[in-house]
Amino acid sequence: MISKSIPSPASFVDELAAFRQQFVISDPHLIYLDGNSLGRLPKVTAARLQQVVVDDWGGGLIRGWNTDWYASPTRIGEKIARLIGAAAGQVIVSDTTSINLFKLVMAALAKNAGRTKIVSDEFNFPSDLYILQSCIALLGKGHSLQLVRSRDGISIHPDDIASAIDDDTALVSLSHVAFKSGFMYDGPQVTQLAHRSGALMLWDLCHAAGAVPVELDAWGADLAVGCTYKYLNGGPGSPAFLYVRRELQDQLQQPIWGWFAERSPFAFELDFSPAPGMAHFLVSSPPILSALAMEASLDVFFQAGMERIRRKSVAQTSYLIDLYDARLASLGFSLGTPRDPAIRGSHVSIRHPEGYRINRALIEEMDLIPDFREPDNIRLGIAPLYNTFEEIYEAVERIRGVVEEKRYLHYPDKRLAVT
Amino acid sequence: MISKSIPSPASFVDELAAFRQQFVISDPHLIYLDGNSLGRLPKVTAARLQQVVVDDWGGGLIRGWNTDWYASPTRIGEKIARLIGAAAGQVIVSDTTSINLFKLVMAALAKNAGRTKIVSDEFNFPSDLYILQSCIALLGKGHSLQLVRSRDGISIHPDDIASAIDDDTALVSLSHVAFKSGFMYDGPQVTQLAHRSGALMLWDLCHAAGAVPVELDAWGADLAVGCTYKYLNGGPGSPAFLYVRRELQDQLQQPIWGWFAERSPFAFELDFSPAPGMAHFLVSSPPILSALAMEASLDVFFQAGMERIRRKSVAQTSYLIDLYDARLASLGFSLGTPRDPAIRGSHVSIRHPEGYRINRALIEEMDLIPDFREPDNIRLGIAPLYNTFEEIYEAVERIRGVVEEKRYLHYPDKRLAVT
Repeated sequence: MISKSIPSPASFVDELAAFRQQFVISDPHLIYLDGNSLGRLPKVTAARLQQVVVDDWGGGLIRGWNTDWYASPTRIGEKIARLIGAAAGQVIVSDTTSINLFKLVMAALAKNAGRTKIVSDEFNFPSDLYILQSCIALLGKGHSLQLVRSRDGISIHPDDIASAIDDDTALVSLSHVAFKSGFMYDGPQVTQLAHRSGALMLWDLCHAAGAVPVELDAWGADLAVGCTYKYLNGGPGSPAFLYVRRELQDQLQQPIWGWFAERSPFAFELDFSPAPGMAHFLVSSPPILSALAMEASLDVFFQAGMERIRRKSVAQTSYLIDLYDARLASLGFSLGTPRDPAIRGSHVSIRHPEGYRINRALIEEMDLIPDFREPDNIRLGIAPLYNTFEEIYEAVERIRGVVEEKRYLHYPDKRLAVT
Repeated sequence: MISKSIPSPASFVDELAAFRQQFVISDPHLIYLDGNSLGRLPKVTAARLQQVVVDDWGGGLIRGWNTDWYASPTRIGEKIARLIGAAAGQVIVSDTTSINLFKLVMAALAKNAGRTKIVSDEFNFPSDLYILQSCIALLGKGHSLQLVRSRDGISIHPDDIASAIDDDTALVSLSHVAFKSGFMYDGPQVTQLAHRSGALMLWDLCHAAGAVPVELDAWGADLAVGCTYKYLNGGPGSPAFLYVRRELQDQLQQPIWGWFAERSPFAFELDFSPAPGMAHFLVSSPPILSALAMEASLDVFFQAGMERIRRKSVAQTSYLIDLYDARLASLGFSLGTPRDPAIRGSHVSIRHPEGYRINRALIEEMDLIPDFREPDNIRLGIAPLYNTFEEIYEAVERIRGVVEEKRYLHYPDKRLAVT
């Protein structure tokens, strides 16, 4: 069936093949290409959670805070740090990505108070843009948000970012990998651009952490936020992380002074004084069950190694694009993702005017789960720890089947998208 | 052993006795009087969590968001609403108590922008005071915080609250039940005082929800926040809730504009516009495992009923104070909690110059878990759903033993308190 120029999935050497065994695959026929939205359940997670609930909470009761839980935002942060190129003492687990972004943006704007502009792009996740807008509204002092536009609908041209950043720019706030097109910025290059103008650089790593190589320290990044429920497989709504470069930590003050940010929280003093280091970027009690379940999901990344994960990811997204060219391009699709793997994350968007209904049909009839993003993007997320080359081949066949047989036509054309 | 005037624990009729069976009691000899810090594990929770993890996440994957998770902040909020006297459509589950407080205080100060004063008291939980201080710092417009002081170290005199609230008061922000002394405000009375002066009234219900009768709608309260991991038994760091009176919901705008607060989050538009009703008080994805574990803990409250819970709580805290008078008062203790049950929550603080070391000895040698709060408070929390009258009697015996035998003396006098 396969065209001569496209290799068969069996021809790939998959050096990470064994890692799929570490995940719960309850229905082997189901092809899950939405690990960029919610990662699969690692087998260790359920067992770890039973231990936390039954032994530590049920048996240990309040003592769990002293033996394990109170230190967890730092301990888990250090593990995530290793996946994003951060030396110890710069990453903590806390709250949600949006709240962490709010904290860091407010702190950054206060530090760079002489400047009024925030630079972002139209590919940034809307929640990030809303947070930037809320910070501007709150400050009410003439700050503005400049959104760099895409020339091709897929990528951001480096010249356009460069020309947007000027000596009035307080902060550059970007998603390293764009949630819709999968476009990936050159991290060190953009960080350098920001610094050349005296702006602080903040990276949102939601679609990057666990998927692509991130080297925050080497890039010289100032700030970063990210979630743990996508490629990191932390579970639905698992808590987020944030990074503050060491030199900046005591120069920045985040605006939400909860007791975990206090120098001596158990002294219960009436006046706030901030803890040194990363602690003052915390707010209050983390959701322990969600946090420790997420912690359990991180070990597999150290076993597999980010380099091998990236290598397989590039091979798989490239294979997917080759299959797209051969099997889907003629069916009314267009490719919504960069062809150059150097500027591509770990998902591929294919666009089709009937994308919404095609996505519905794939989920409901074809045992294939991608996701849909307005107005016409079907996102195919590749999680190299559990996605196989066979799945990618078969997914394209199923998509082709749905479109060729027009199976999507009996679904209402209603935009009620899955997260 | 028991003095003639003190009834034996067996003489009490415990109409809630059967509910103890619904909790995991792995060590029956351990007396747990810290349910006001972290509630015990309900038996339903572990099973529910396995279902959420294995079936809904492991099997359902991303589909869980549509079938169950996305609606959970509202659905669980409605359950909590029934425990705090709120009609439907006014309570959601979101973030942490401190973050919710930040959101509501900022919104309240913006609404009451002509006024500059926040009234609170020195008994409020320090994290609440720190949040109030951070809001004032952020606004930078001459707001101030007035802390009403206690005359007796145990309670706040109604006259002192009344005289603090004036026509420059934007917001009155108080804990309904004080974390240290257990003092409980007259909710309707203080709410009325705030309203008479044109101030908004915000209640922190952390030590009230699930422990004492709260009637937010009947009181006319404007705003409330609270946690779910104390008397509500939601698990360590389980997500918090917030209440906004219906008439105020569209007049207030909270400052952190995450995508869950957006009118059409899945349209992914670049400019924020707030959702109507309670949704715009959300920020972003809740920690689902922690949230759904917490949800499972709520049903028992509807079975038991807040009225019966309060009745048993008053009987138990009164019994504890009677035992204190008979057995502990002569040993260097003083009572740190109101004797009048009408102004008392569900814990009793006993104070002793050696409180820190006595608390250590109780935990490490006596199988009794209270907690310690600076400078000298041993808090004895009563959770009527699982604490028995026998436990209260026996706890006092163990405390007496530790002090009489001076067992605490071999512990270092170091203030390293349990949460």
